[in-house]
Amino acid sequence: MTTTAKPSPRDRLLDAAAELIYREGVGTGIDALCRAAGVSKRSMYQLFGSKDEVLAAALARQEPRLAALLMPPPGEPAAPRERILYVFRRMEEAAASPGYRGCPFLSAQVELKDPGHAASSVAARGKRGITDFFRAEAERAGVAEPGLLARRLAVVYDGASTRAGIGSEVLDGLAVSTAALLLDAAGLTEQEGPAEDTAGGAKDGGEAA
Amino acid sequence: MTTTAKPSPRDRLLDAAAELIYREGVGTGIDALCRAAGVSKRSMYQLFGSKDEVLAAALARQEPRLAALLMPPPGEPAAPRERILYVFRRMEEAAASPGYRGCPFLSAQVELKDPGHAASSVAARGKRGITDFFRAEAERAGVAEPGLLARRLAVVYDGASTRAGIGSEVLDGLAVSTAALLLDAAGLTEQEGPAEDTAGGAKDGGEAA
Repeated sequence: MTTTAKPSPRDRLLDAAAELIYREGVGTGIDALCRAAGVSKRSMYQLFGSKDEVLAAALARQEPRLAALLMPPPGEPAAPRERILYVFRRMEEAAASPGYRGCPFLSAQVELKDPGHAASSVAARGKRGITDFFRAEAERAGVAEPGLLARRLAVVYDGASTRAGIGSEVLDGLAVSTAALLLDAAGLTEQEGPAEDTAGGAKDGGEAA
Repeated sequence: MTTTAKPSPRDRLLDAAAELIYREGVGTGIDALCRAAGVSKRSMYQLFGSKDEVLAAALARQEPRLAALLMPPPGEPAAPRERILYVFRRMEEAAASPGYRGCPFLSAQVELKDPGHAASSVAARGKRGITDFFRAEAERAGVAEPGLLARRLAVVYDGASTRAGIGSEVLDGLAVSTAALLLDAAGLTEQEGPAEDTAGGAKDGGEAA
């Protein structure tokens, strides 16, 4: 095996599934998935027992990529408040791209309407990763109720990303500045003078669309 | 026409569509819709040009009901802050019912993935109603940036209702108390002593599911 090897049918299928499902929804048919991946249905069924399994595996494969996209590297920035706001900044950046349709994990859960579905469990785990990160940083900062702050931040993260994904909002610092207000309220305030370029940049314009 | 008249095929179809789509998603087939409504496909196509039209009409029919469920009656409560928190309290109450799957408008938009779809436009209008209400109350209260506050509140509303709908959160005052913090931050503070029973009731327990 070399590093330039062509992606395996399994990887092609999962990457195509992730893209198609994000763009068109979990109702995307098996034929469309196989066509997009250039994999026969026969091969697909040799690799996976059902479309539901493909769905779950496609979401699981996205987890490390999304974490790399959203989470700050260890120690950079160092301050818990800045590490938390980093996630909101990265989400706002992602939300500015034309194909953005919100968090793929949340969308899958909304569409599947069944927390017991294998793919919903994978998606819930992916999202818990973000809430756990908020909580760990809040704990590190010595906030009185780190779990509560993390839940509030998760609400803002999901509300802002979903509203951007459906085209009801253009995020202009809205998520970052709202998260910053909640950090302020929890006593996790800025320590070294003004450093947040984007916080407070949200406009008073009502809805964008 | 009497008030005890049997619902028309049109109303039966729209009510069945609203319920089925909320429970199972916008991918629900025409056969299932007609079966649930007790209406023949032939009758359906005499009433509506397509399933998309049924979808849009079913969402439009829910708009006044949802407004009646969520919005405070005129003048009661009177204070803008309490009127805004009323909406969050009502949403948390709705979210406690077993069949809750989040805001039907938001879900439809997430599932359709197309802001140009007729049903997405209806849903977006329904959601704008809530943001406009927040904004009008914030303006009445003389808040400096009423549009920005309304956008923040809409983010919290959608994030909390969606997370409850997918089973990632059990709202225990979380939405109400988070909205209250944002009202505080905007200077729309309580004026007559402690009146918020639910605000601050959210627990520090991390995610529920």
